Amino acid sequence: MTLQEALRLYLPPVEQALQQILTPPTEDFKPFYQMMQYHHGWLDERFRPTGQQGGKRIRPLLCLLCCGAAFGQPHELTPLAAAIELLHSFSLVHDDIQDRSPTRRHRPAVWALWGEAQAINVGDALYAAAQWSLSALAGSLEPTRVCALRSQFDETCLRLCEGQYLDLEFSSRPTVSREQYLLMIERKTAWLLGYCAWAGSFAAGVSESVAARYREFGLCLGLAFQVLDDVLGVWGAEDETGKPSSSDIVEAKKTLPYIEALAMLPADLAQELQAIYRGPESTREEAAVARARELMEQAGARRACLKLAAHYHERAVQILKELNPEPEHAEALLELVSLLSTRRS
Amino acid sequence: MTLQEALRLYLPPVEQALQQILTPPTEDFKPFYQMMQYHHGWLDERFRPTGQQGGKRIRPLLCLLCCGAAFGQPHELTPLAAAIELLHSFSLVHDDIQDRSPTRRHRPAVWALWGEAQAINVGDALYAAAQWSLSALAGSLEPTRVCALRSQFDETCLRLCEGQYLDLEFSSRPTVSREQYLLMIERKTAWLLGYCAWAGSFAAGVSESVAARYREFGLCLGLAFQVLDDVLGVWGAEDETGKPSSSDIVEAKKTLPYIEALAMLPADLAQELQAIYRGPESTREEAAVARARELMEQAGARRACLKLAAHYHERAVQILKELNPEPEHAEALLELVSLLSTRRS
Repeated sequence: MTLQEALRLYLPPVEQALQQILTPPTEDFKPFYQMMQYHHGWLDERFRPTGQQGGKRIRPLLCLLCCGAAFGQPHELTPLAAAIELLHSFSLVHDDIQDRSPTRRHRPAVWALWGEAQAINVGDALYAAAQWSLSALAGSLEPTRVCALRSQFDETCLRLCEGQYLDLEFSSRPTVSREQYLLMIERKTAWLLGYCAWAGSFAAGVSESVAARYREFGLCLGLAFQVLDDVLGVWGAEDETGKPSSSDIVEAKKTLPYIEALAMLPADLAQELQAIYRGPESTREEAAVARARELMEQAGARRACLKLAAHYHERAVQILKELNPEPEHAEALLELVSLLSTRRS
Repeated sequence: MTLQEALRLYLPPVEQALQQILTPPTEDFKPFYQMMQYHHGWLDERFRPTGQQGGKRIRPLLCLLCCGAAFGQPHELTPLAAAIELLHSFSLVHDDIQDRSPTRRHRPAVWALWGEAQAINVGDALYAAAQWSLSALAGSLEPTRVCALRSQFDETCLRLCEGQYLDLEFSSRPTVSREQYLLMIERKTAWLLGYCAWAGSFAAGVSESVAARYREFGLCLGLAFQVLDDVLGVWGAEDETGKPSSSDIVEAKKTLPYIEALAMLPADLAQELQAIYRGPESTREEAAVARARELMEQAGARRACLKLAAHYHERAVQILKELNPEPEHAEALLELVSLLSTRRS
């Protein structure tokens, strides 16, 4: 099965579940739910239907494909897949407030349109909707299994917040070690992908040790994904990523290219790079940003990051192959893995 | 059993469960968890132990007492009681950011100490911790019962956000009707108290209809509580409430006393009151605030609100008595109800 075929097969019910759970209970709350619908791409900022969706639904798809790969019934997991996407949405809505990012997927962020206070609330409601969606699992899975899926989901949410804590905290630290950075992205990004893969296989009824290998697969995929994201944050093209070019330098985010460059540059150039990252965003002019990018390139940071991403990517592929997955789903999964590891946006 | 005896009997395990779930998993995340511990009153702003706790733990206590009143085993519900308090904590942390309230329980709010971005994250983590705490119920209750308790918990969270949506939204509306206002406080405050009472009785194994009556009891209690809170927001003394006197007028919050006063004042005085509420906080001087309070008093708004609070209070007491509750727990519950309906802070 190709990835396109998997998308067509599995995502429509997920999209339907998302739309159902984000339906206002009464007219009183309509605009509130429309803000949540806006974030998912179904409505524009004046709440007119767009006929589209925002986001690639990578995480729900990963969960459902791992369920199929482990010889389970992906359709039983629709509420879980919807919950995973809602959790991801919640984290993006709050992230944009925290980072003061005015745009998301080429459109204004929720907070930029309806203010911070309501955007905090939109994120909270998306999280609550994610949790509520999980309740619907009781219709198709036995209660002990639902409890286990929920318990791990909850731990994942807490780990996500821990990752976000470190990410926010890094901005006020003079230096960040490679280990601290990897711990941060493990929590903030990779843990959820690990959960997706674990949960899909767990629901399929595999043994604990096999489910743990699926989790490892998802974790590696998440790490590859995030390291590549950091490369795009420095070297990505604006028309492809939807974010201003080198936005991570503009915002002085201490991501892996910066950390690697500092470790590899001679002392004077490392100091020059650090000096560019010091001070508020408004002080970093275009020339300074370009110079920082050049220093990182010169240090070999891009190459080092791409090498690390490739390492995680290969590990993910290796683990998946060792799991003897159902071939049709494995094909789609491998295509998803390649896509995430070679994407340009 | 007196309320004091109930506190001593039931709250220590809840406090212990809270402390356990808010223990950092590793040193890397220690300050993050300390922020959460600070909010619960155990640490001061420099993370030194206070030997105290913040908050009255009313909601957990309501849940446990209703469980006992319905002839159940309150001790089995410790993880649920902890989850309820964590949910309440999460909502307060985000509320303070949204309302720009610099203090909470006579101390600086989390956002005032560690910034908005991290405070959003602290709230998110408290919510995640609340959910995770619910997982522990699987140790003492059967899984189908845990699923039902969780499902209703999730709906409650969403209703809470809906209430918060209206509350935030009211600030930009010229007028708010009594019905809209009651809908808002039902969602924002009363629903959670309704859940506490429902969940305690449900876990005790009562019939659906009895559990529904317990929910009604909690809802009435919540409505009485909130209407009284609004009276205190206008007429409460600063040294008792911990908030500046008449803070709801200063912040131009369209709470019940304002709505009632507008409905009862002659047109010219109603216009005068509305004029005071217009414009940003900085324009409302002490004399204007005092005048608004006087107008509300003169209109009879205080009396009308206290009458409504008493009505809900009496309904709560009536429902509880009709439920033939276990006498020891009923005694403590009635004391809790009286306390909430006659409090001055």
